Amino acid sequence: MRNSDLVSLNMNVRGLTQSATLAIKDRCREMRARGTQVFDFGLGQSPFPVPPSVVEALRVHAAEKDYLPVRGLGALREAVAGFHRRKDQIEAHPESVLVGPGSKELMFLLQLVFYGEIILRTPCWVSYQPQARIIGRTIKLIPTSFETGWKLTAGLLEDSLKAANDDARPRLLVLNYPMNPTGHTYSTRDLQELSEVARRFGLIVLSDEIYGQLHFLGEHVSIARYYPERTIVSSGLSKWCGAGGWRLGTFTFPEELNWLAEAMAVVASETYTSVSAPIQHAAVRAFQCGPEIESYLRHARRILAAIGNRCTRVLREAGIRLHEPQGAFYLYLDFGPLAERLHGRGIRDGATLCDRLLAETGVAILPGSAFARPVPELTARLSYVDFDGGAALAASESVSLDKDVPSELVSRHAEKVFRGVERIAEWVGRR
Amino acid sequence: MRNSDLVSLNMNVRGLTQSATLAIKDRCREMRARGTQVFDFGLGQSPFPVPPSVVEALRVHAAEKDYLPVRGLGALREAVAGFHRRKDQIEAHPESVLVGPGSKELMFLLQLVFYGEIILRTPCWVSYQPQARIIGRTIKLIPTSFETGWKLTAGLLEDSLKAANDDARPRLLVLNYPMNPTGHTYSTRDLQELSEVARRFGLIVLSDEIYGQLHFLGEHVSIARYYPERTIVSSGLSKWCGAGGWRLGTFTFPEELNWLAEAMAVVASETYTSVSAPIQHAAVRAFQCGPEIESYLRHARRILAAIGNRCTRVLREAGIRLHEPQGAFYLYLDFGPLAERLHGRGIRDGATLCDRLLAETGVAILPGSAFARPVPELTARLSYVDFDGGAALAASESVSLDKDVPSELVSRHAEKVFRGVERIAEWVGRR
Repeated sequence: MRNSDLVSLNMNVRGLTQSATLAIKDRCREMRARGTQVFDFGLGQSPFPVPPSVVEALRVHAAEKDYLPVRGLGALREAVAGFHRRKDQIEAHPESVLVGPGSKELMFLLQLVFYGEIILRTPCWVSYQPQARIIGRTIKLIPTSFETGWKLTAGLLEDSLKAANDDARPRLLVLNYPMNPTGHTYSTRDLQELSEVARRFGLIVLSDEIYGQLHFLGEHVSIARYYPERTIVSSGLSKWCGAGGWRLGTFTFPEELNWLAEAMAVVASETYTSVSAPIQHAAVRAFQCGPEIESYLRHARRILAAIGNRCTRVLREAGIRLHEPQGAFYLYLDFGPLAERLHGRGIRDGATLCDRLLAETGVAILPGSAFARPVPELTARLSYVDFDGGAALAASESVSLDKDVPSELVSRHAEKVFRGVERIAEWVGRR
Repeated sequence: MRNSDLVSLNMNVRGLTQSATLAIKDRCREMRARGTQVFDFGLGQSPFPVPPSVVEALRVHAAEKDYLPVRGLGALREAVAGFHRRKDQIEAHPESVLVGPGSKELMFLLQLVFYGEIILRTPCWVSYQPQARIIGRTIKLIPTSFETGWKLTAGLLEDSLKAANDDARPRLLVLNYPMNPTGHTYSTRDLQELSEVARRFGLIVLSDEIYGQLHFLGEHVSIARYYPERTIVSSGLSKWCGAGGWRLGTFTFPEELNWLAEAMAVVASETYTSVSAPIQHAAVRAFQCGPEIESYLRHARRILAAIGNRCTRVLREAGIRLHEPQGAFYLYLDFGPLAERLHGRGIRDGATLCDRLLAETGVAILPGSAFARPVPELTARLSYVDFDGGAALAASESVSLDKDVPSELVSRHAEKVFRGVERIAEWVGRR
């Protein structure tokens, strides 16, 4: 590096490191390469394969080579709008759908084109805040607590908005449910109350519902039902369709926010251009759903629910505080009740807790600080996805969906998850 | 739109419109839908299909669903490094390759993380300047002229650098050859002379060689051979591999610029995450090349050369100034000698020229102003790609590569291109 190079880095980027979730994946990969057994509860990747009909659609469309329209392939935008109309009972038109290479990229473009304040509850998903920093945006964080299930309440939101003494400020509220990193979700009542505050202050809401179809009871409700006029609904193939590596996300806009969609499409045309053509053609099949995919989802949900609930019991018995999960594949562990014991072992913050846990047991989880929680807080996210989702699905398919998934099926297929969780329980018990 | 929304757009984005090349594609699509015959010489998309072995590789890897490493799949980075070692005789290591969803996206990230001046010759590719504007960067344009083949000369570069009276300024020089929009390329001597100036001023060079394999004689030379220490070589699947819609580009860095690669990877991890997994697996096959792909390239080159040369003759006879193409699939038309006649028809700038040409003949070309040339200049880019590349390739394959491609084969397969060019010739002759 030359002298002149020392000043040639954008200040917004200096000192930033790779996304925490991706960095933990790289670290696990290295440990495994050295022969260490790793329980990879760091990255939030669906354990299930892409449904066969969707993979087949990719094969059929492998020779598609044209640049597609910036906003997305017409048939795909039609399928996405249909998906939201059917699943969420909201108005959604193909013209108001924007397809991008992952909803993370779309979120970045939204932050880039929107000039205003961005509001997040914490703990929040790892990338919202670094994106704002890269662009140079102001973020307003609203901390939540274990006691309210880490949920943003209408009261917390209203207090925060009022405190700014600037009711007309342009604001974007980001909601994400079922929630990453906590596995909880909002009730209909919660959403109605949040909508009322949002409407009073004219907020734009980005409703990140990428885990919507992984609500364990299949009863996901979108805030767009109560605040349709200014809610952007975010979805994609990564979580419910098991295709994280395919990189396809979608934003669905209300008509009133078409100016934002248009500005994002302009920036998209100067950056990623359009999403990979074969992937878009295959995604049409995914968003159309149908019996095969509905069955896939119901099996995935009951497997995840059974694993999440059993992990919760084991961890609670070890003295860790956490809520029963309602969707997605995350648990948010609060080691607060064990603080004294952990302090005695030299563990005074979440990052040290996770480092020591990984070094001493091979279990990888991510500290609360990666989710914008205070550094000293002893919280962490656990993704219970380190199992063979394909084998588990196949086994589950031999048991009627009317019944609970047999306990011994779960034990067999998620055996590694439970061993990892037992290691955590044993580790926190050490003196 | 509400009152508060009027101020909620990033000033860098207000008033920007979609990328000119993508916008012309949309306009042609609309005209066709209304039943008008359109000669689509606007968008620079390869007319050739993706080679069959690469399509087959995508089929084989259709079920790949994992998030891949941010910098790219290991096997692909290996293949890309090998490609540049073989094709360009430059040192290239897998660790120094960065894979992105199109080289356009990588260019955007580079502009975003680099704090310094960006130097472009004009006419330049359509997206460099809007990207800089979105990010808020300063661009230094160096105009070139017909007389020097629209090439940036060492003399022009040095004069421009000296004029700033700030030799230590961090600077990024963007070169692109074979050139979009002019179809020309730099000679070895040109590159050596440019390297000397670049070295003297410590420039970082982004060498956009996406058309390298479409040098008509297969004799593309990279500036990285003469200025290896600070040249980033850009390539991708879009042009030589016919896979523009797949969205995969690559940057290959020298060791000295690893700090830039690392900063870009950090931003990538917070935006697009990684390139679509099935596409990356298939791209390994493409960058490995081998006899099938070399043969594909040789046929593609001789078809393009024959079409480009014949178009040049027809257009010159009509009084338009242009150079014989050396690579890619562009001609850069200078209507200057016909200015008086065009002025008489109310045509006083390139945009009006292109609008009128499209409305009156159905031929779509892009004005020089889209390539950062002065608005009144009567220049335009013509992409001679509106023909069935698959059929042309198949026909060419029946003729030995030792011979020239038969004139009547070209006439038959690029008949539409020639009809479009004849229309231009006829149109400029009108009074």
